[in-house]
Amino acid sequence: MMKLQVPGFVAGAVAAGLKKGGDKDLGMILSEVPACAAGVFTTNQVQAAPVLLDKKKIKSGRCQAIVANSGNANACTGKRGIEDAEAVARAAAIALGIPEELVLVASTGVIGQSLNVSAIEAAMPELARQLNPTGLHDIAQAIMTTDTFPKTVTKQGSIGDKTFTVAAVAKGAGMILPNMATMLCFICTDIAAEPDLLGQSLKDAVAESFNAITVDGETSTNDTVLLLANGLSGQNIEDAGCAEAFQRILNDILFTLALQIVQDGEGATKLVSIHVKGASSKADAKRVAYTVANSPLVKTALFGEDANWGRIMAAVGRAGVPVNPERIDIYFDDVCMVKDGQGCGRQAEEAATKALKTDRFTISIDLMMGTKGSTVHTCDLSPDYVRINANYRS
Amino acid sequence: MMKLQVPGFVAGAVAAGLKKGGDKDLGMILSEVPACAAGVFTTNQVQAAPVLLDKKKIKSGRCQAIVANSGNANACTGKRGIEDAEAVARAAAIALGIPEELVLVASTGVIGQSLNVSAIEAAMPELARQLNPTGLHDIAQAIMTTDTFPKTVTKQGSIGDKTFTVAAVAKGAGMILPNMATMLCFICTDIAAEPDLLGQSLKDAVAESFNAITVDGETSTNDTVLLLANGLSGQNIEDAGCAEAFQRILNDILFTLALQIVQDGEGATKLVSIHVKGASSKADAKRVAYTVANSPLVKTALFGEDANWGRIMAAVGRAGVPVNPERIDIYFDDVCMVKDGQGCGRQAEEAATKALKTDRFTISIDLMMGTKGSTVHTCDLSPDYVRINANYRS
Repeated sequence: MMKLQVPGFVAGAVAAGLKKGGDKDLGMILSEVPACAAGVFTTNQVQAAPVLLDKKKIKSGRCQAIVANSGNANACTGKRGIEDAEAVARAAAIALGIPEELVLVASTGVIGQSLNVSAIEAAMPELARQLNPTGLHDIAQAIMTTDTFPKTVTKQGSIGDKTFTVAAVAKGAGMILPNMATMLCFICTDIAAEPDLLGQSLKDAVAESFNAITVDGETSTNDTVLLLANGLSGQNIEDAGCAEAFQRILNDILFTLALQIVQDGEGATKLVSIHVKGASSKADAKRVAYTVANSPLVKTALFGEDANWGRIMAAVGRAGVPVNPERIDIYFDDVCMVKDGQGCGRQAEEAATKALKTDRFTISIDLMMGTKGSTVHTCDLSPDYVRINANYRS
Repeated sequence: MMKLQVPGFVAGAVAAGLKKGGDKDLGMILSEVPACAAGVFTTNQVQAAPVLLDKKKIKSGRCQAIVANSGNANACTGKRGIEDAEAVARAAAIALGIPEELVLVASTGVIGQSLNVSAIEAAMPELARQLNPTGLHDIAQAIMTTDTFPKTVTKQGSIGDKTFTVAAVAKGAGMILPNMATMLCFICTDIAAEPDLLGQSLKDAVAESFNAITVDGETSTNDTVLLLANGLSGQNIEDAGCAEAFQRILNDILFTLALQIVQDGEGATKLVSIHVKGASSKADAKRVAYTVANSPLVKTALFGEDANWGRIMAAVGRAGVPVNPERIDIYFDDVCMVKDGQGCGRQAEEAATKALKTDRFTISIDLMMGTKGSTVHTCDLSPDYVRINANYRS
């Protein structure tokens, strides 16, 4: 893998004491110059203070630094929560010597507890000193909660003799049915772009990545995706061929991170793509795919490596989309398990079980009602999901 | 508890070899005389053969016997499934010497496998011999799948000097978010009633019982509630005061069974009522209540006895109903945990944790948006739910 480095960006992380155990919990990304910025945020009506603050600030289309903490979501914290988020941005601005309005903030962790702002303020000068060109790895670690590995991707593109770079970090693990955005994801690029174009590009990339995954059907209060473009590559998204090249790379990066989030879903042992086709509309296809992808009985069967297609049929039937049960076909990878709504017998089940025993496979469902399709990526439901979440705060 | 006995009804059960381990798996209820009948069935579009058959037969408003098996749902079994369900009804009719059109059937168990009809036919004469006035206990056992206890209730009512009796058996355990009906429930009464009135009475009782519970958000392919009224008490539902007395008892019985189903939800350790009030409409209240009641993160916190109210706020915020997060109040029994969208502090949390450590409590959520309310009853999500369902077919 290439180095996680984008010209003109530095990053870093420290342990500010917000997480138990002394792990890194406060990270920062800084662009040498003010960057063009776009963001996508949670659709949950209960929105954390940093989300509310960023949504206001990002209207300017400009940002130079992002500060993110784990260990505390700063959600359901009222006016004090907003003041705390502002204080964090202010402390970062002072340490970096940049205007406060160019600092965005993000938080993840427990909901409903006040942020330990003085710990963050105390750690800020050291955090500013830590910033370095390869520091994106560190911030990827600092935003982990129940994630088991840091999530990062870098890619380069070129138009003519000029290259540009896009790098991103993300965290996921639980509360994952993003709707317009997921969890925390920060993307840096040295391309130049106006905020509107950048925002559209981000939305398009999110639609087929973070908005096509689920771990547990939950939408977080803190979901935030931020994209900073500092223009230092000399390439502008409006240059000939550049928008397409950039979009391809951005889609690719966000899709890779989205799959990493599902793969690292709390307690997950399998990454399963649910592909619905033959639907009357894309919305119908997505609704059926999400109903199957979030079905506890389907997910426990996946964990048990049991080709229990009856549960898939039952989930399809309750998705709220008109279907004809007697025409539905279901495949596990390329094995036909269900034809015209009925099982294909023991041999098919044995072949499907082989696919089930791998850690990544696709379940295809053909509704035979039309020509539209959609794919959602999910994981299985294991006793570890319950264990992790029964004890999350203790 | 009074004896599970209704004048004019006999019941019984045998082990026909459909369930592993030789447990009772085939049960029957017979009325001495043809009874008036009403039914409520699953809203899942994927409907099992016995559901399809009963929906057709019950249009006559008459039924004399119900045959039910566990171990196999006879769902997703195509034309052969319908023929098999008809064969079961025929075998029962022959053994009982009654017309085939007066026999209803019900199945529960694995989806997608053909029913072993010859085993059922072979067991039928013995089953007919077993029928006796206290046999409802036996059929309650015979329809159990992952249920840990048989579910039965009996009550008597009286108008003037005449009494009437209502008794019911049910099974639940998993795939429980009934929508118009739940799992299997058979109700016998010696009251007299025309099918239309009986059907309305059943619908009303189901609305606030089986349609107000959830274990896992799944709606089964086989949900069936059947009510037989044989009229032998000499009381008619149209007699003065009788409709109200009957409705009160029917509501009470179905509500008791519904709570038993949640209490015996797969892996459940707690029965939790989610009461949403202050909503703009009853539909809004119910949607919020169901979103909280089905949230895996709320349910795992309940299992962990963690008063993690932030997850309740997050679930309310993604329910798809307009809310004002800054006005929401949340109570655990009578402890105020959240006031105006913010936590009430450590003391409140400690008090709430005491409620959480009991096996039955209420979470009340006041949206402060209006005057409508709704209550949904749910259970916690434990590692045992996953274990039971990962290995269900093996």
